[in-house]
Amino acid sequence: MQHIPIITLTTDFGSKDPLGGIMKGVILGINPAVRIIDLTHEVSTFNVREAALVIGMSYKQFPQHTIHVVVTDPGVGSQRKPITVKTEHYSLIGPDNGVFSLIYNENEQYRVIHLTEEHYFLRERSTTFDGRDIFAPVAAWLSKGIDVSRFGEEITEYVRLPFPSPSMPTRTTLEGEVILIDHFGNAITNIRTDDISMLRSTMSQGTLWIIMKGKRISLKQYYSQAEDKGLHALENSMGYLEIFVYRGNASAEFNIKVGDTIGMMVV
Amino acid sequence: MQHIPIITLTTDFGSKDPLGGIMKGVILGINPAVRIIDLTHEVSTFNVREAALVIGMSYKQFPQHTIHVVVTDPGVGSQRKPITVKTEHYSLIGPDNGVFSLIYNENEQYRVIHLTEEHYFLRERSTTFDGRDIFAPVAAWLSKGIDVSRFGEEITEYVRLPFPSPSMPTRTTLEGEVILIDHFGNAITNIRTDDISMLRSTMSQGTLWIIMKGKRISLKQYYSQAEDKGLHALENSMGYLEIFVYRGNASAEFNIKVGDTIGMMVV
Amino acid sequence: MQHIPIITLTTDFGSKDPLGGIMKGVILGINPAVRIIDLTHEVSTFNVREAALVIGMSYKQFPQHTIHVVVTDPGVGSQRKPITVKTEHYSLIGPDNGVFSLIYNENEQYRVIHLTEEHYFLRERSTTFDGRDIFAPVAAWLSKGIDVSRFGEEITEYVRLPFPSPSMPTRTTLEGEVILIDHFGNAITNIRTDDISMLRSTMSQGTLWIIMKGKRISLKQYYSQAEDKGLHALENSMGYLEIFVYRGNASAEFNIKVGDTIGMMVV
Repeated sequence: MQHIPIITLTTDFGSKDPLGGIMKGVILGINPAVRIIDLTHEVSTFNVREAALVIGMSYKQFPQHTIHVVVTDPGVGSQRKPITVKTEHYSLIGPDNGVFSLIYNENEQYRVIHLTEEHYFLRERSTTFDGRDIFAPVAAWLSKGIDVSRFGEEITEYVRLPFPSPSMPTRTTLEGEVILIDHFGNAITNIRTDDISMLRSTMSQGTLWIIMKGKRISLKQYYSQAEDKGLHALENSMGYLEIFVYRGNASAEFNIKVGDTIGMMVV
Repeated sequence: MQHIPIITLTTDFGSKDPLGGIMKGVILGINPAVRIIDLTHEVSTFNVREAALVIGMSYKQFPQHTIHVVVTDPGVGSQRKPITVKTEHYSLIGPDNGVFSLIYNENEQYRVIHLTEEHYFLRERSTTFDGRDIFAPVAAWLSKGIDVSRFGEEITEYVRLPFPSPSMPTRTTLEGEVILIDHFGNAITNIRTDDISMLRSTMSQGTLWIIMKGKRISLKQYYSQAEDKGLHALENSMGYLEIFVYRGNASAEFNIKVGDTIGMMVV
Repeated sequence: MQHIPIITLTTDFGSKDPLGGIMKGVILGINPAVRIIDLTHEVSTFNVREAALVIGMSYKQFPQHTIHVVVTDPGVGSQRKPITVKTEHYSLIGPDNGVFSLIYNENEQYRVIHLTEEHYFLRERSTTFDGRDIFAPVAAWLSKGIDVSRFGEEITEYVRLPFPSPSMPTRTTLEGEVILIDHFGNAITNIRTDDISMLRSTMSQGTLWIIMKGKRISLKQYYSQAEDKGLHALENSMGYLEIFVYRGNASAEFNIKVGDTIGMMVV
């Protein structure tokens, strides 16, 4: 089977302005054969942490060799570096402002390249749209098979934002927090499937309690298993503990926000 | 001309989360040659009836052999079946919750297949995202020419939601209702072009009256024919009677909602 | 390198209804090899001026031979003409209501063709969706290499909306206005890079003042150069003077609207 390269786009551009479309125009001008997929253009404006979570939760769900471009970039035009991160299976392109923090956390082997070779950029560049002038053309050239080392030097200092794992104040207690609210109002927490397994393994017997907003929350297998309109929890499709209201909006109905704490314990 | 398969996506995922993009990643991992078209990701959350209307109004506007994937699926993870509907010209894939009701109503010949052959699903599956784990890969394999019978057994019991036609209390009177409000605030009713023709044929003379919200509404050929800012009607591009305000928003300005009644009569 | 044709779509359809997707279905039914790029479907409803600005700022950022389809078309179904504009490098397709005004202003050589050859349209046509019935199929046939002259006769009278350049009340003063508010709340003005260069050239010395809302605004090179939360200006990536608040929303925070005036002078 012929290899057809894929480039994904994750930005805070919104859908009103033609910026995402323009990036695609630039890409197709360099490599007309590439497939371009919108991951989202609705990252909250300037929210680098949210962009880091979106790409961190999504990048491995694409075929190997996929090139992910992330543009949430309030520092565009300043001295912050344009970079490419090369993991074993993926390439990621964007500003060095922490958007790739989860990639750094999850991968043991990766290289970070400072993009400096200007002949791979657009000839006429602005100071406000590196997505068009640098990231799109570099992604397109990369998709044509140019080796990542051709775009600049490897660097060892780069921005990594803290994305703390849940704390474990006792051997049978986990303390996590809400990291993202999705379109349905579900609250995604930083408690992972592995954390829950570990907690369970601490006691051969006992019941798992989940506490949020002073209430005990039951753990379900799927949404429609919830028998009432209260808060429930499940392990979601990305491997995160998620708080939901069946056919409701947990965030709006129970005033849940990013940063709210959640406790788990075996009792 | 070489056949390039097309897959469309209709979901209630919104555009903020990367779920639609992830489904595309899964599809392209199986069949990189397929064309993927977003029909909409903005079906109102959990609104199976609205999804049924969107796909019912759209599916025939695509080339033959198009594969339509519909994911408005509050019952994901439960016992509700994943299915494929095969009509003469199209394949449709989604949950058995009624999203394909209009397809059943419009087609005399079709088969419904219960998707059970798990080797066509993703190997690691969640309980909350059949769009990624079942529907996307089945669509991709179908687009590669795998026969629909390979995915599971035909079933004869499946969910069909009532989408009533207008009633005809007298030979010269139609009673319909609003079934959808579009982006422009236009109110689309369940009165079809055929219904209007039939009503007209009942009398060789007489005038057609359309009554809504206690007002008589004139029937126009196109939007800008409306000479004032009141309610007007026309037969829209999908063959439905539609209520509109020229350069206005009928739903917002006249408080029109899904379920509101509309009358038509020859007087 | 094989030429792969590109068609872009710019509409006011929104993302809730399947209209943009349906246009793609029609295009792919005629030319399955074409690449289709959404520029935006979020032009403000019926806002022909805004559509004219979006396409005017974007069309040249695509590879040569790109075909741009623009559908903001409150007059659909009436006597307003469907047209194709052919410039040296691009084709543009849409209604003759002024959406191509900036193209006319910027290009010395172009032809406007009245689309009349109905065998290039869909066979069954509506009175409300020329995007599907006329513009999409004409774009698809054009992308297959059919010469533009085959679609109809050239016309010399067509709608051109006024998009005034900044006025120059004195040799050292420019008066412009806000023409567009973007997703970030940045206010894009009709003052171009060339205007600023000309103003600067009028005096060998002196300082450039930008005045808006009674305040002096400093000119920056890039967003994060702004040292406070007040209004600042820069020359944006499209070559327009843009007013912004760093990590803020200039339009919302300072009540800036389309039509607001801005002054520039050398003092």
